[in-house]
Amino acid sequence: MKQSELFTKTVRENPKDEQSINAKLLIRGGFIDKLTRGVYSYLPMGLKVIKKIENIIRQEMNRIGGQEVLLPALHPKENWEKTGRWNVEEMFKLKGRDKREYSLGWTHEEIFTPLLQKFVSSYKDLPVFTYQIQDKFRDELRAKSGLLRGIEFLMKDMYSFHADEKDLDNFYEKVKQAYFQIFKRCGLEKETFLTYASGGTFSKYSHEFQTITSYGEDIIYLCDKCNLGINKEIIKEVKNSCPQCGNKDLRQMKSIEVGNIFKLKDKYSAPFNFKFKGKDGKEELVLMGCYGIGLGRLMGAVVEIHNDENGIIWTDEVYPFKVHILSLEEESSVKKEAEKLYAELKDKGIETLYDDRDKSAGEKFADADLIGIPYRIVVSRKTLESKSVEIKKRDESNAKLVNLQDILNYVR
Amino acid sequence: MKQSELFTKTVRENPKDEQSINAKLLIRGGFIDKLTRGVYSYLPMGLKVIKKIENIIRQEMNRIGGQEVLLPALHPKENWEKTGRWNVEEMFKLKGRDKREYSLGWTHEEIFTPLLQKFVSSYKDLPVFTYQIQDKFRDELRAKSGLLRGIEFLMKDMYSFHADEKDLDNFYEKVKQAYFQIFKRCGLEKETFLTYASGGTFSKYSHEFQTITSYGEDIIYLCDKCNLGINKEIIKEVKNSCPQCGNKDLRQMKSIEVGNIFKLKDKYSAPFNFKFKGKDGKEELVLMGCYGIGLGRLMGAVVEIHNDENGIIWTDEVYPFKVHILSLEEESSVKKEAEKLYAELKDKGIETLYDDRDKSAGEKFADADLIGIPYRIVVSRKTLESKSVEIKKRDESNAKLVNLQDILNYVR
Repeated sequence: MKQSELFTKTVRENPKDEQSINAKLLIRGGFIDKLTRGVYSYLPMGLKVIKKIENIIRQEMNRIGGQEVLLPALHPKENWEKTGRWNVEEMFKLKGRDKREYSLGWTHEEIFTPLLQKFVSSYKDLPVFTYQIQDKFRDELRAKSGLLRGIEFLMKDMYSFHADEKDLDNFYEKVKQAYFQIFKRCGLEKETFLTYASGGTFSKYSHEFQTITSYGEDIIYLCDKCNLGINKEIIKEVKNSCPQCGNKDLRQMKSIEVGNIFKLKDKYSAPFNFKFKGKDGKEELVLMGCYGIGLGRLMGAVVEIHNDENGIIWTDEVYPFKVHILSLEEESSVKKEAEKLYAELKDKGIETLYDDRDKSAGEKFADADLIGIPYRIVVSRKTLESKSVEIKKRDESNAKLVNLQDILNYVR
Repeated sequence: MKQSELFTKTVRENPKDEQSINAKLLIRGGFIDKLTRGVYSYLPMGLKVIKKIENIIRQEMNRIGGQEVLLPALHPKENWEKTGRWNVEEMFKLKGRDKREYSLGWTHEEIFTPLLQKFVSSYKDLPVFTYQIQDKFRDELRAKSGLLRGIEFLMKDMYSFHADEKDLDNFYEKVKQAYFQIFKRCGLEKETFLTYASGGTFSKYSHEFQTITSYGEDIIYLCDKCNLGINKEIIKEVKNSCPQCGNKDLRQMKSIEVGNIFKLKDKYSAPFNFKFKGKDGKEELVLMGCYGIGLGRLMGAVVEIHNDENGIIWTDEVYPFKVHILSLEEESSVKKEAEKLYAELKDKGIETLYDDRDKSAGEKFADADLIGIPYRIVVSRKTLESKSVEIKKRDESNAKLVNLQDILNYVR
């Protein structure tokens, strides 16, 4: 895309009403816009980033057998009364003109469970793994960290349905691995830790994936020996020692929860009386697991981790464009070469932003750093003298001259 | 995908609470599920169809220069008060715990206009064309036609911003052509007509795209001479004659509105005081157009038009899978060949549903007709005797024997 055609513009000053790094940089770079507290719009480059994250998540969910669906955000009261969750404070409620009451979905157990109940009647129909990538709403008083805690937010939520606990346990481990793969592909491998948290009614612990960042709202204790995190909420319960290896030398860190997985067992199948006929002909309650990742939150976490004083540093698989071409002079021969290169990269399917604007070199460099595209290619009179361009990776400090013919070897 | 793994199942009986063809067939085929009046879930095959439609729309919007964004569904009251539309009856309203009032978006002029105002200040920043594919909510008392009229529904809404009327007029014509292209690619070319409708405050007429179907809720008068539609609401105003060619011989038809386009001019830029500096340095109001297509409604319209007594007939570009393989016997040699073919088609990137279930031939044929995948391939002992399979297009009545080696020539 030509940058002159992009309707967003970068901003030098930090927004006054944002404290978090992710909100400041994403707004200044033109990725998102704040409509109101906790509610953001994804602008063209922001949406491209979200789509990258969405595709990574989709690939990994499909790989473990997930079937994608799309459920509504508007829920009838009856579904939530069944499970006794109609009065959850964070749930938005509204009334229709027909006097019926609805809520806006902040999670979807109450919708997935009776939906699957329509199709599953025998052990032969199990297991089922199904997920959606969908807009959620939470009446959140603490929304203040940009994309890290939204009132409206995109989420991937998967629900699994099983005939027995062993099958649930097996799949639960598969999801754990898939989640690590997702965080790795997003560039958060080093900072993200499986974390024990409070388990609720049925399990001793649930599991969170916590990414260490100074702007995190959670506190975890990290075991340096086995790399397990322990959420502060259970640190007394585990007597200040790692429940996995016994180590007592734990480091307290701030972190942000980028994913969570739960064994629900029959918590939601029971109120809906969702049963299946087993091999022995006996009816039993279906067992469930649920597995969440917030897409916007993940995008925010990537920015919190990968930035420097000049802007964002997008990662290998998460970026708005892969290559950013800057043509430095107005001179027509330079523009011509830059255009040619832009056409060539586009032709090869390499997502490229081409800064063709009538701006100073300084402004173009500053914008490129702020926007944070992985590869910056500078085309100027000087580089063209040696039939070359200057390529610099956003996370490296040195640029190198590369012959025009060799560019694809660098950016592909 | 193997059909044995698909969690949905087909249903023989029509749902009791649905009157429209689209709802009956889509529910029976396992494409959608009704959560409550006007609110549907997209199940795996339904979501695949929606994604096809989404991609067609996205391609055509990008082709005319559209920049995709994603705006929130939750809107602060203030935006809607500015334009005097806070009291629109069809708008859902809700209150947060912080006592602030919100509405759920049923259209997005009130959000796009102030957003673009942040980036556009000069004639050099214009025109801008921006769109989203997003979930909308309308407190609809008439929701009763399946996907044709939803309370929650997916919509593509584009908004264009211009410096002068000529530019708006030019782009408006481009959108018209893009819309025809979308309806053509969805298989609705023959049945869809540009229709004059009431124009609102600023234009004499607005334009709708109406698809002729007996389940339509609209009534249009069709001019056989020039193929223009006239919405009933303005038929008196145009004195029962075609406003384009003067013909008085008009046919009354039932139809469904699959798209609409509006010249908004300064209707929304004025209340937000959204101005730009012109070439002469004078400040002027930005002119706007808006352009909508409902994705679910389009899917519903495709089903209303393309079906027979046995089920849905998906079109060339809109389908859940392109090929449906049916293996008819439990015999291992037949299964082996069917599996091999399935693997081969998957490998070539051809989306294939493979009916590997332990069901009778009759059931498999009935399901294939109901689901309506464009190409049905039958693998049986008999066809394999001549090293062949039987290929039948869903919209044709005769099957033909095709050599195993030639299959790709037929389905690619």
